[in-house]
Amino acid sequence: MTSPLKVAILGAHGRMGSEAVAAVNNAVDMELVAALGSKDSIESILEAGATHVVDLTVPAVSEQNVRFAVSHGLHAVVGTTGWDDTKRASLTELLTEHPETGVLIAPNFALGSVLATAFAAKASQYFESVELIELHHPNKVDAPSGTAVRTAELIARSRAAAGVGPSPDATESSLDGARGADVDGIRVHAVRLRGLVAHQEVLMGGEGEQLTIRHDSYDRASFMPGVLLGLRTVASKPGLTYGLDGYLDLGL
Amino acid sequence: MTSPLKVAILGAHGRMGSEAVAAVNNAVDMELVAALGSKDSIESILEAGATHVVDLTVPAVSEQNVRFAVSHGLHAVVGTTGWDDTKRASLTELLTEHPETGVLIAPNFALGSVLATAFAAKASQYFESVELIELHHPNKVDAPSGTAVRTAELIARSRAAAGVGPSPDATESSLDGARGADVDGIRVHAVRLRGLVAHQEVLMGGEGEQLTIRHDSYDRASFMPGVLLGLRTVASKPGLTYGLDGYLDLGL
Amino acid sequence: MTSPLKVAILGAHGRMGSEAVAAVNNAVDMELVAALGSKDSIESILEAGATHVVDLTVPAVSEQNVRFAVSHGLHAVVGTTGWDDTKRASLTELLTEHPETGVLIAPNFALGSVLATAFAAKASQYFESVELIELHHPNKVDAPSGTAVRTAELIARSRAAAGVGPSPDATESSLDGARGADVDGIRVHAVRLRGLVAHQEVLMGGEGEQLTIRHDSYDRASFMPGVLLGLRTVASKPGLTYGLDGYLDLGL
Amino acid sequence: MTSPLKVAILGAHGRMGSEAVAAVNNAVDMELVAALGSKDSIESILEAGATHVVDLTVPAVSEQNVRFAVSHGLHAVVGTTGWDDTKRASLTELLTEHPETGVLIAPNFALGSVLATAFAAKASQYFESVELIELHHPNKVDAPSGTAVRTAELIARSRAAAGVGPSPDATESSLDGARGADVDGIRVHAVRLRGLVAHQEVLMGGEGEQLTIRHDSYDRASFMPGVLLGLRTVASKPGLTYGLDGYLDLGL
Repeated sequence: MTSPLKVAILGAHGRMGSEAVAAVNNAVDMELVAALGSKDSIESILEAGATHVVDLTVPAVSEQNVRFAVSHGLHAVVGTTGWDDTKRASLTELLTEHPETGVLIAPNFALGSVLATAFAAKASQYFESVELIELHHPNKVDAPSGTAVRTAELIARSRAAAGVGPSPDATESSLDGARGADVDGIRVHAVRLRGLVAHQEVLMGGEGEQLTIRHDSYDRASFMPGVLLGLRTVASKPGLTYGLDGYLDLGL
Repeated sequence: MTSPLKVAILGAHGRMGSEAVAAVNNAVDMELVAALGSKDSIESILEAGATHVVDLTVPAVSEQNVRFAVSHGLHAVVGTTGWDDTKRASLTELLTEHPETGVLIAPNFALGSVLATAFAAKASQYFESVELIELHHPNKVDAPSGTAVRTAELIARSRAAAGVGPSPDATESSLDGARGADVDGIRVHAVRLRGLVAHQEVLMGGEGEQLTIRHDSYDRASFMPGVLLGLRTVASKPGLTYGLDGYLDLGL
Repeated sequence: MTSPLKVAILGAHGRMGSEAVAAVNNAVDMELVAALGSKDSIESILEAGATHVVDLTVPAVSEQNVRFAVSHGLHAVVGTTGWDDTKRASLTELLTEHPETGVLIAPNFALGSVLATAFAAKASQYFESVELIELHHPNKVDAPSGTAVRTAELIARSRAAAGVGPSPDATESSLDGARGADVDGIRVHAVRLRGLVAHQEVLMGGEGEQLTIRHDSYDRASFMPGVLLGLRTVASKPGLTYGLDGYLDLGL
Repeated sequence: MTSPLKVAILGAHGRMGSEAVAAVNNAVDMELVAALGSKDSIESILEAGATHVVDLTVPAVSEQNVRFAVSHGLHAVVGTTGWDDTKRASLTELLTEHPETGVLIAPNFALGSVLATAFAAKASQYFESVELIELHHPNKVDAPSGTAVRTAELIARSRAAAGVGPSPDATESSLDGARGADVDGIRVHAVRLRGLVAHQEVLMGGEGEQLTIRHDSYDRASFMPGVLLGLRTVASKPGLTYGLDGYLDLGL
């Protein structure tokens, strides 16, 4: 049996971080060698012998954390937001100096959500019609959700690339808002309901058939299989990978 | 065994009418004694010995057909539209002269749809949140559907009567239309998709639970059980009944 | 404004009990005057001035608790199991001596679940076909769930009373188990899936249409609206009521 | 603009064949040059100038039709059943003599169904639990459906290849059949309901999340986009392709 991955978690006391601590502790092929809070010095991960870093901190420190890790040849799995094009380009440059080191930056670690989005984008080019319904708890302040907007954008891009026209719609008279929001030509409906958490449904329809892809997310625990998959894969993917879908085996 | 009901169908050559002809012919407890088109004289239903009439004609002639039937003591089941308050009030008056005669006027004969609306209206008073999604083929010209608007109105009335406040919604920033149309305070979303026929879903949510009532309608055949139920029941319900729900056993 | 209900909770430290304590504390029309654990003396609820009792204890003590409450003219809402026919008959007798006192014993306080079962039982008499799918987390030891079995029994009874025959099924060759379990002639399918909690779907189908009633239960919080509804209603329903549906306004 | 494909349809008077005739006639990039019934001579497709053949005949003649087409350098899209390993091996051999000719043999032309199966097989390796529900009209004689069995087999193979263990299941007491049929370790449930046509749902669950892929098939029209896609692609895929998924762009 191979020796366990030696994992350091940065941001270990936050909500995601504490889930990650538990997940790594439960993984038989991993050893948690360091769990750092915001006041701990990152140098300690070297003494601890870490080979892999999970960064679940905040945008203000994530970049320097990851650059520190890469500079020392440690692989990194990053769930912190704020990694814009500039930061990613700069990191890619640094990685050329460490050609054996891998970094995964993932805006979304829920495997089901990543798969659902990838499948919907692929499949939608084969159907005349496509619409999207997202459903969330009523405390959410934005509508539609960021995931729904991104999914709709990917669907629109996929259909454009395949030369598929807009979904047919003969609506002549309509109450304001009935047909949903328009995101790059894709209709998106946002439902808010007490008792729900985070759910999304892509409906695709053609003559005589319908394909529906639905994802339900109930709690942060759903991100952990994606984090573990990232840790297990990152060393075999040198350079920067953006998006967990880059690690999934989705070809046929 | 009781003798079969003697049924005359008016508007027998239309789309609904021809379905009704087939349905009555297949019902072992009914006998089709007359099937009239628009050029046939209604007098002939008397010679044919009809005791029950199904009116599936057009608004311009439905009122005189039904009044003719009632005047001769025949029970009537009516699926034609256009029976406004004035016409119904006038018919109720005529029925007082024929106290043993029954008439059912039903805007919707699909049992599942009538049940779904009744259940949703009842149940929605017990949930903090309620929203409605209707889904139809893309050739439909209005959004939301008439059935969805009516369902939302009944839900709103039921919640108002029970003193339930509006569904919670913390949305601060929203793309135009994302949160659907507002029908008496109830959010209604209309999906248009090739391959669909007519579908409606009422979602109700409270802390920790959700109740969903969905109706799918695939073709006009779905109206026939309601028409037959009407024929079997109308003689036992003297006077005018508006809406098939009046014939359904829905109390507990 | 009327004065708040004075509520005593028995079994206040259990899982359901602590939810009930929180719920009553949050209800503006109720005052929590006593919260008793298993070692506290029930006499104290009299000194505390309680007019309503919630019993969420264990079968071994529930009966004497409720009889004590009734003997002192207190209304009781009971979620403890173990109230068989004998115990209920005996309680009913005691209640005849206290004609103004009400007791609600409810095997299930989730409003959505109670409504879903009632609606399914009513509606199923109007459809040719009916089947049931229940879906739970994979740690559940029995299949199908007790709620599913009870729902199927009520559906079977409703269909028998209405003279509806068995659901059509032309299956000639079948893998063992494919068509589900047979509960009084109703097919019941049990799904076990990581990530699920407790869910149930009744599917009813006729020519050209389908009616689906689904209930999703996510946590014990879903029982609290039912407990509060019970407390608000029990004083107006003297005698013993078995099942929360007796308090719901479900007629049309 | 490129000149239209010149298409000959064999089995043009059958149910699938007549749909195909209509579909090809409606396609602006195709020209129907021959539509043969069982009594017509296949030689006539040469005179008609066909470059593409659609075979929707019967197992007894499909092989010789396709071999005739290939021998004359015509591309073929085949929906007829009965193409076992032996026949396909023999055809592959013939195709080596015609290295520019393509043949597609597809057991299923419904794009949505093919996509749903491919996605489910791929995704199921990332989830702890997976089960399958298929739902059909009650006149179906086998349970589960052939498509459901094949999907379960592909899911089982995908999970085995990825080293995923069996779905967790703590069931100790169960009514016979409640947990469905066992197909290679995957639980499959078959629902039969009046009003349904052909539907399938793959449910995948992990800690805190669920992915559901559903396909609804309403009529044979749903096969035609797949047939047209086959015709448009077959010339660019020399040799034998088995299964429409070979023509779909499903990689990421």
